[in-house]
Amino acid sequence: GEIRIFAREIVEKEIEKYAADGLGRVDYALASGGAMVVKHSEPYTIARGNNWFYATKLKDVDDDAAKMLRPSFGEPGQCFPLRGSNGFVEIKLRTAIVPEAVTLEHVAKSVAYDRSSAPKHCRVSGWLQGHLPTDQVVDTENMFLLTEFAYDLEKSNTQTFNVLDSAGSGTIDMVRFDFTSNHGSPSHTCIYRLRVHGHEPNSVSLLAAQS
Amino acid sequence: GEIRIFAREIVEKEIEKYAADGLGRVDYALASGGAMVVKHSEPYTIARGNNWFYATKLKDVDDDAAKMLRPSFGEPGQCFPLRGSNGFVEIKLRTAIVPEAVTLEHVAKSVAYDRSSAPKHCRVSGWLQGHLPTDQVVDTENMFLLTEFAYDLEKSNTQTFNVLDSAGSGTIDMVRFDFTSNHGSPSHTCIYRLRVHGHEPNSVSLLAAQS
Amino acid sequence: GEIRIFAREIVEKEIEKYAADGLGRVDYALASGGAMVVKHSEPYTIARGNNWFYATKLKDVDDDAAKMLRPSFGEPGQCFPLRGSNGFVEIKLRTAIVPEAVTLEHVAKSVAYDRSSAPKHCRVSGWLQGHLPTDQVVDTENMFLLTEFAYDLEKSNTQTFNVLDSAGSGTIDMVRFDFTSNHGSPSHTCIYRLRVHGHEPNSVSLLAAQS
Ligand SMILES: [K+]
Ligand SMILES: [K+]
Ligand SMILES: [K+]
Repeated sequence: GEIRIFAREIVEKEIEKYAADGLGRVDYALASGGAMVVKHSEPYTIARGNNWFYATKLKDVDDDAAKMLRPSFGEPGQCFPLRGSNGFVEIKLRTAIVPEAVTLEHVAKSVAYDRSSAPKHCRVSGWLQGHLPTDQVVDTENMFLLTEFAYDLEKSNTQTFNVLDSAGSGTIDMVRFDFTSNHGSPSHTCIYRLRVHGHEPNSVSLLAAQS
Repeated sequence: GEIRIFAREIVEKEIEKYAADGLGRVDYALASGGAMVVKHSEPYTIARGNNWFYATKLKDVDDDAAKMLRPSFGEPGQCFPLRGSNGFVEIKLRTAIVPEAVTLEHVAKSVAYDRSSAPKHCRVSGWLQGHLPTDQVVDTENMFLLTEFAYDLEKSNTQTFNVLDSAGSGTIDMVRFDFTSNHGSPSHTCIYRLRVHGHEPNSVSLLAAQS
Repeated sequence: GEIRIFAREIVEKEIEKYAADGLGRVDYALASGGAMVVKHSEPYTIARGNNWFYATKLKDVDDDAAKMLRPSFGEPGQCFPLRGSNGFVEIKLRTAIVPEAVTLEHVAKSVAYDRSSAPKHCRVSGWLQGHLPTDQVVDTENMFLLTEFAYDLEKSNTQTFNVLDSAGSGTIDMVRFDFTSNHGSPSHTCIYRLRVHGHEPNSVSLLAAQS
């Protein structure tokens, strides 16, 4: 009787967390929340005739890049592949926040065909772009190192890393992930999903103004 | 040993329910089941130059309105925004049913940017349209009040409300949700998902005829 | 204390499995993994004027056929309907494998409008097509009977069947499902999802070469 009630409570809480985008934590880098990829290193594409050159060179942001800012729902292949064993992604957040953590998600071990294309070492920076165009270079003094981490293939496939204390409580609306190595693939590095967590400065006064 | 078996049973049952569209209950307002939005109050759109007027005035049903009849999978932003703090939605059900309950789903608290745009008070009516065109006004004598409810931000994000006994066991194929207030946003009211539950009259004889 | 830790462990493990495409098992027939439907029996379509004839006759593979190789996420209607009470589907796998099992998924009982269109008896064969075009008939000597099964409406909606020992450990890259009966619908047979499990021959040496 008592154990049953109690077991059910634990189950319901865990499923509730799972149902709430897997983590139950607000993500300011979510595409459906208004965030977008504004720049990334060269994508990995399979050449088809002569089209390959044009497909990858004509624009800054690939149509599929937003996949990195959307749920993967446990499905292998719902990722964006960067060319080579390293690369970068720059994201304009939904709104300016005081960052607290970032999350990197890869496909689960049990359903993956191969995980050598998973990112390994990563350096994350942030800055406030404000109303400047996103292709305009920001003064490096305004850039924060948010955190550096290594994605561990033996842990849960969704890994969250706290922002360093040294980052202080500055406000940012841009985040850059520099993937400096992967788990072995020489040809490409697959990014399933990137998230940025934090809180809005003066969030009380903004409550009524936002969706 | 015994506790383990027993805990696993509870977990499997709860996950099974979660996997079955979250509630494990048939939804006759589901878009992929053949239901559709046939009318709604003015959508909330952000003006872009002069296009806004045309975009919202030229048709009765916005292309995105079907979002209200599809799963949200815990993703913020997978909703349809109505202009202002109140509005309505009319739905043609997949088939005629004796209604038993309706469900209103909003985004989970833990991942929401802001929940002031959640609907609050709602009045739900139903009627049998049959083969009449859906834009033809039905005799108000044929309309039932199904239920009135208030969506509570402190409870589960998916809330089900039973149809009033006073509605009797009439058959309907149209449902109208009148949202008379929201949780504070003056600009818009976001509808994540609407469901209608019940049973088909003479369901046994129809079994072989339907998908 | 102890029971709590222990209950949480079970819950986390089961949710992890659910999050990993429901089964936590690699699927070589997944569309996003590169597999595709190459042939199927006539689809079930509702005639609209004179368009019906053209829509179903002009090509071998319907645009919607890939639905059978994608997750359904518990949503009724996310299936591909074959005409009549029997039919077949041929799939080119992502890569050549030694097959171990196949999975047939239908919609959950609790949210289904009707389950008479669920497949019942099924015969599964496999062969190695290699670089031959997929419309070229393969020598029947090279075809294996992988398994024969009956989908049981009273069991879990996702049912996995092991490959027969008699199939040996041959390598295949093509699988054909022959649905010889369904659960009662004379008009159509709905296929929600087909999966093929196994392992790659010499999988170690291929690790770095694949995504
Ligand atoms: K994704
Ligand atoms: K939705
Ligand atoms: K499907």
